[in-house]
This record gives sequence, structure tokens and C-alpha cells, in this order.
Amino acid sequence: MVLHLIGLGLGDIKDITIRGLETAKSCSKIYLEMYTSILSYGLDRTELNKAFGKDVIEADREMVEQLADQVLDEAVSEDIAVLVVGDPFGATTHADLVLRAKQRGIKVDVVHNASIMNAVACCGLQLYSFGETVSVVMWTDGWQPESYFDKVLSNFERGLHTLCLLDIKVKEQTVENMMKGNKKYEPPRYQTCSEAAEQFLKICERRQERSEACLINAETPVVGLARVGWKDQHIASCTLREMTLVNMGAPLHCLVIPGKTHPMEEEMLQTFAISKR
Amino acid sequence: MVLHLIGLGLGDIKDITIRGLETAKSCSKIYLEMYTSILSYGLDRTELNKAFGKDVIEADREMVEQLADQVLDEAVSEDIAVLVVGDPFGATTHADLVLRAKQRGIKVDVVHNASIMNAVACCGLQLYSFGETVSVVMWTDGWQPESYFDKVLSNFERGLHTLCLLDIKVKEQTVENMMKGNKKYEPPRYQTCSEAAEQFLKICERRQERSEACLINAETPVVGLARVGWKDQHIASCTLREMTLVNMGAPLHCLVIPGKTHPMEEEMLQTFAISKR
Repeated sequence: MVLHLIGLGLGDIKDITIRGLETAKSCSKIYLEMYTSILSYGLDRTELNKAFGKDVIEADREMVEQLADQVLDEAVSEDIAVLVVGDPFGATTHADLVLRAKQRGIKVDVVHNASIMNAVACCGLQLYSFGETVSVVMWTDGWQPESYFDKVLSNFERGLHTLCLLDIKVKEQTVENMMKGNKKYEPPRYQTCSEAAEQFLKICERRQERSEACLINAETPVVGLARVGWKDQHIASCTLREMTLVNMGAPLHCLVIPGKTHPMEEEMLQTFAISKR
Repeated sequence: MVLHLIGLGLGDIKDITIRGLETAKSCSKIYLEMYTSILSYGLDRTELNKAFGKDVIEADREMVEQLADQVLDEAVSEDIAVLVVGDPFGATTHADLVLRAKQRGIKVDVVHNASIMNAVACCGLQLYSFGETVSVVMWTDGWQPESYFDKVLSNFERGLHTLCLLDIKVKEQTVENMMKGNKKYEPPRYQTCSEAAEQFLKICERRQERSEACLINAETPVVGLARVGWKDQHIASCTLREMTLVNMGAPLHCLVIPGKTHPMEEEMLQTFAISKR
């Protein structure tokens, strides 16, 4: 039968497409992939079950590996739906699932949807002028990598915008709990625009101290986006230094470093300026 | 009132989101933007009117400029929907409409959807490893620009994939008809993967003749995509030279030049290989 990978879009149940809803309803089992999709906090289980007319099975981080095998086994004889926040190909996990299905001769059907990768254009920057996308990592005391910043710089030098996806820590365990084998998890943590901006600023300062050339500095314009596609979506345009102080509210956040901007892009960004300049 | 920009996704009426459908239905007028959206040939007018419960007003290339003013005038006192194939921010035209609405104090609401900009990942290449997107132009005898190729090269050199959007000629007039003032248009033309590959090959040859360094050549792997998200979607992975001979069928096509590929990307591309290597 068929393995249907269905994009849920930006995170509200109404963001599913008609094709996605109809397809999921017609399947004998519906899984909700929660490993990469952290937006699940915006999705109400009862609402989901009601919309699809059957119980949606949540598959979290621990389940994800064994889930793949189970889903594929089932898809041999039944139509199975896997719901994914955003677009099904937004995360490596799903490409892997598709590949394994194909290798086993199982037909795969994909229902596309919006993801932050294209919805980010709502800030006014043209999508085709974005360079490589960057994943920012939350620093710890002992681990403060700068490699993502080099990618941002590389885009910036070429005049390209950079979408920076911010870090998410879900189902993290303390070392103590991990050693004791306690299945007790820390509350999820979502990196904010101001936290990311602080890390960027820190990197700039370090490079200045080392007298390294760095085109990005505290006065570089940046754009913060929060809860894109939601009713309370918030966009703020300001300098990197200013962004360290901006409260963008609840997650998810992402940060954009504009490259060379065209007049219309500039005008759009101005409509989101935190201080009219 | 509110100007609603509603993404239709990849081109079939069922690709609209539930939010998009409900929003459009609640508006007093619904426009279908046909300037940038060439996928309209996949959308049946009767089907659209039925789905929305009212007549959808088509706005084509000629109408688009005056439409903006009219739509904005109407949106002052009514809820107006503008339907756009793909995501509303896929084209500059819509960003312009949003900007003008904001400047007039009209509230803008956006319903996001999939577009080729994120759906392209269905070929197995990871979205975050794509560099700048490139628009290929159909060459004429007198006009054969190569600037898009330099952008592809620049991505390629950095190991990034390039999505090449192929040219579309809609509502083009012959010089004769234009001079006579005849509103007679040529049939729409859509650049194919093989046509684009031929142009690429030509550029490579020219650069070789001029002894210019060019990392891309006839043996460079490329990926052709046709009708992404449609039932008869087709993906083909082969060399640039081979692509000049591949018939990808009906439009729309796009061409991807992969940069550095990871093993899983490579495996996925292999599933689309026209000749098993």
C-alpha cells in the first residue's frame, strides 16, 4: 500500500491542506512525528483526533527509530499517514524514511505544505536571495562553536540573506537522571532571537579582539521572526546589538541576517523597525 | 477591513489549506493572481468557483497593475482575498502589494502554503544546503545572457545546491501584433529541463573555448523536476549532457544543480537515476 507523508504547515490544525486532511482520514493509521516537529505544543491532541476521525499516534524522539521500522512494516499492507509539522522534506529524518520505503518497494506519497524555509519571506526579504540556511546551536560553558557564523558571513559577503534556525532542546535529560536511568526530562528549551543575537555579538567581539576581519558587527541590521504564520506572529527589524534586548515572546523564533537589500526589501523591513529611523 | 493573501500551494485546488479555503469563502471578493502564477492551467475555473461558493476574478498580466489599486481601494471597506499559486511571498509582485497595503493602513493577513522553493527538497537534496536561487532566461538569437550561470557556479564552488527556476513566456506578443496594436498573444511557452541543460552546456563550451576555468561541465550531475506535487510528478537524475535529451513531459519544470552531496542525498538521487550506474 502507500506511505503518506503529510505536511502540517506552520503548526495549527487549519494549516493542513484539503488533500492532506482527506488523505490522512483515508489511512488506517495516523502517526504524528514529534522528533523534529517541536511545534506540537500548538497542536491540541483532541483537536487532531477530531479532525482526522481517529486517534493520532504520537511518535517522539525515543520512538522515532523503532517507529520507522514499524511504519514501514505496516505500510506494506495498509495505507499509513505520517504527519509532519512544516513540509515533509524539512528534516533529514523524513528523507531517510522515504529512502527506506523506496528500498523496500513501498510506494511513497508526499503532501507538501509551507515551512519556515519559504514562509520566512513574510519579513519582506526575497526568498531567492537567501543563501545557505544555518542552524544556530545553544552554547554551553564548554561548547561554543562558531562554524554557523562562518556560513552567515559567507552569505553576507555575497550579498545573500541568511535564515538562522534557532536551537531547540526537547526531551533533554540531566546527566544525573541519565546516569540513574530515570526517564525524567527537562522542560523543553527554545533559543530566542535575543539569545542568538548575544552569541553572534560575542563571536564578533572575539574576532575583533583577535583583529580578524568581520563584516558583521553590532550595528548590522537583523530581523527577528517569532511564531511565523500564527495569529500572534511578530517580526522585529533592528541592529544586532538592539536584538539582544528585544523580547519576541513565545517560541518558535528564527533570526535573519539580511545581505544586500533592494529598495522594496528595505521598505518592507522598515515596517517592522523597532525604532523608526 | 483585511486584505488576505492566500497561497494555493502547488497548483491543484485541493492543495489549499483549510484556513485558506475558509478565509477566501468569508471574503466579499476573490481575485486569482495569474501574473506570476502560471500553474493556472491546472486550475479549473468551475472547480474554483464551486469550492469558494462565488465567482473568482482572474487577474492577468495586463490587469495586475491596475488591480493592485482596485484591490486596495476595496480592502478599505471589505474583506478581499487574493489567491496566489505557491506561497504569497514567492513573487515580488505580492511583496509590493503588501507594502502598499501597509502604507495605506490596510491590515494584511497571509495564509502560507508550499512553493517550489521548499517542495524542491522532494528530489532528496537537503533544503538548507541550497544556495541562492537562480532564474534561467530563455535565450533568443540576439540575447544570450550568462549571468545566472555565474550564480550557479558560485553556489557549486561552495558545495551548495542550486534551484534553477526555468523561464515562462505568457501573453507574449509578436512584434507585428504589438506594432499593429492587436491584442493577440502567442501560446504560452515554458522552458524545459532539456532546453535549460542545452543552454548550460553551451555556456560550458564557450568558457572552455575561452580557456576559462569552469567547474561545471557535461558530466556534472543534475536533477530535473517536473510537475512537483502533482500526481504525475517526475524527477530525473543524470548528467548535464544526458539531461539535454530527457523528455520531462508537460510543464512546469525546474532544474537543480547539486553541490556537495551527502551519502543519503546521493542514495535518494540514485532512486531517480535515468540509468542505473
